[in-house]
Amino acid sequence: MKFVGYYNGEIAELEELKIPMLDRSVFFGDGCYDMFTFRNRRGFAMRDHLNRFYNSCRMLDIRPRFELEELALEIQKCLDLADSGCGIFYIQASRGTMYRSFAYHKDPAEMSPVSNLIMFTSPSELEPEGKVYHLKTHEDTRFLHCNIKTTNLIPAVMYSQRSWEEGCQESILHRNGVVTECGHSNVVLLKDGALWAHPQDNYILPGVTMNHLLMLAPSLGIETRIRAFTLDELRAADEVLITSTGLPVIRGVSLDGQPVGGKAPELLRKVQEAYREFYAANISRDSILDEANY
Amino acid sequence: MKFVGYYNGEIAELEELKIPMLDRSVFFGDGCYDMFTFRNRRGFAMRDHLNRFYNSCRMLDIRPRFELEELALEIQKCLDLADSGCGIFYIQASRGTMYRSFAYHKDPAEMSPVSNLIMFTSPSELEPEGKVYHLKTHEDTRFLHCNIKTTNLIPAVMYSQRSWEEGCQESILHRNGVVTECGHSNVVLLKDGALWAHPQDNYILPGVTMNHLLMLAPSLGIETRIRAFTLDELRAADEVLITSTGLPVIRGVSLDGQPVGGKAPELLRKVQEAYREFYAANISRDSILDEANY
Repeated sequence: MKFVGYYNGEIAELEELKIPMLDRSVFFGDGCYDMFTFRNRRGFAMRDHLNRFYNSCRMLDIRPRFELEELALEIQKCLDLADSGCGIFYIQASRGTMYRSFAYHKDPAEMSPVSNLIMFTSPSELEPEGKVYHLKTHEDTRFLHCNIKTTNLIPAVMYSQRSWEEGCQESILHRNGVVTECGHSNVVLLKDGALWAHPQDNYILPGVTMNHLLMLAPSLGIETRIRAFTLDELRAADEVLITSTGLPVIRGVSLDGQPVGGKAPELLRKVQEAYREFYAANISRDSILDEANY
Repeated sequence: MKFVGYYNGEIAELEELKIPMLDRSVFFGDGCYDMFTFRNRRGFAMRDHLNRFYNSCRMLDIRPRFELEELALEIQKCLDLADSGCGIFYIQASRGTMYRSFAYHKDPAEMSPVSNLIMFTSPSELEPEGKVYHLKTHEDTRFLHCNIKTTNLIPAVMYSQRSWEEGCQESILHRNGVVTECGHSNVVLLKDGALWAHPQDNYILPGVTMNHLLMLAPSLGIETRIRAFTLDELRAADEVLITSTGLPVIRGVSLDGQPVGGKAPELLRKVQEAYREFYAANISRDSILDEANY
């Protein structure tokens, strides 16, 4: 299959797969998700992504359908059926199937409903050689639970569409001039030889790729500075790096039509190269759930 | 059928109905909705609700599947198939079916995708004789688009579940002590003989029932005060009224375990009685889309 779709054990072409209208994703966006890349049918940093996924479930009081080890087997079934060994793997838990009601269980003695498991594979080359981003600012109007990777994503949809319409590939979100993150990525800076990143509070998602960069930085002789930065500080940065799972470390080249970054190309190359090596060293492990060796 | 389910023209028992997993409601909660009550298979204030529904679509750039008059016919099909002539009608537009992508169309010359139409009926008696609410405060952590009736409802789910677990039926939301609305209702006060209501900005939904009360108040000799009020002002109010489509004008009797309201029972009765008369006068019109006579 080109896109393998999965719903609670049923596997079919993604375009053909149907789910109950009473799945709580439909009426409330009541779910959380995560994504990781795969190559040669092996996931990258799966444990990081699945830990975050289970953590999102915990924060939302969503009861996972499977334990981690069982889930890994279900994931592997999908990976094995994909035409392409290389791409993006998507996984979502939605809070069960029931008549529409805001509260999800009325008896405190009862357990929460078992969540529905939605997954799919999407083929992708994963290697955006020389790709750069033009960026557009948006006021960050999202809720205050941005640390949870939920499927309440309308603001991200709106930012993305508007940025796209203006020829931009990502959005820089800010609250009163203080940068939080992007529409669906994190943003970090190279500035004065250091890597600047937002604190991991409820204003941003704890990005797996961003955390890998923060982990790699010391070995590259790059100091890390965990602090929120302003739009002005971003504009004055040596380099602006947009990090995400699908497109790990992309250089931002303009913000609202004005050039940004481009002042530390050597350091940027060093970071991108280190990330590529890190990825290559960790993608080909024996089992998809081997302990990470980093 | 007990619960009539509808998806893009397909009608079936709600529990049996399935939708494509690629419906954008599933991955992004990317849709908007509205609800109205019906009695004897006639909708109440349908035009108000459908105007708001189309307005939500416009604000989200969601392209409706039907024009208003066609939509009314589809709604009537469902009403005619419902076992009970009396209940709640739910209607949702989700932004089309496509592979998961934040931006929803890449060619600015192109039109937005046609939305999917999700509807269902739910039987309900609609007459909560003597019902009262115990209330619980929550910090309002929602996004800044609360004027749009979207299906990004995780915060409302969380507030509702927590309130329920503490024996409460609704949540009073506040931003730094300033009351906005409830988890899935509006809140208005009777105070010094006046009806106090929050301004209709992006912090609250423009409630149809709330607006009906504001419209009826002058004829009852009640002045209206459109201003945000604090939790302390709510605690000191003569009466606290929770308004929503399904349960129009319910008295709040406690907040976080402390009694509230109860100081103007005559005025409250007058308001509730006026609303009941207004409802009765407007439910039995000839066509579901007759112009309102108020």
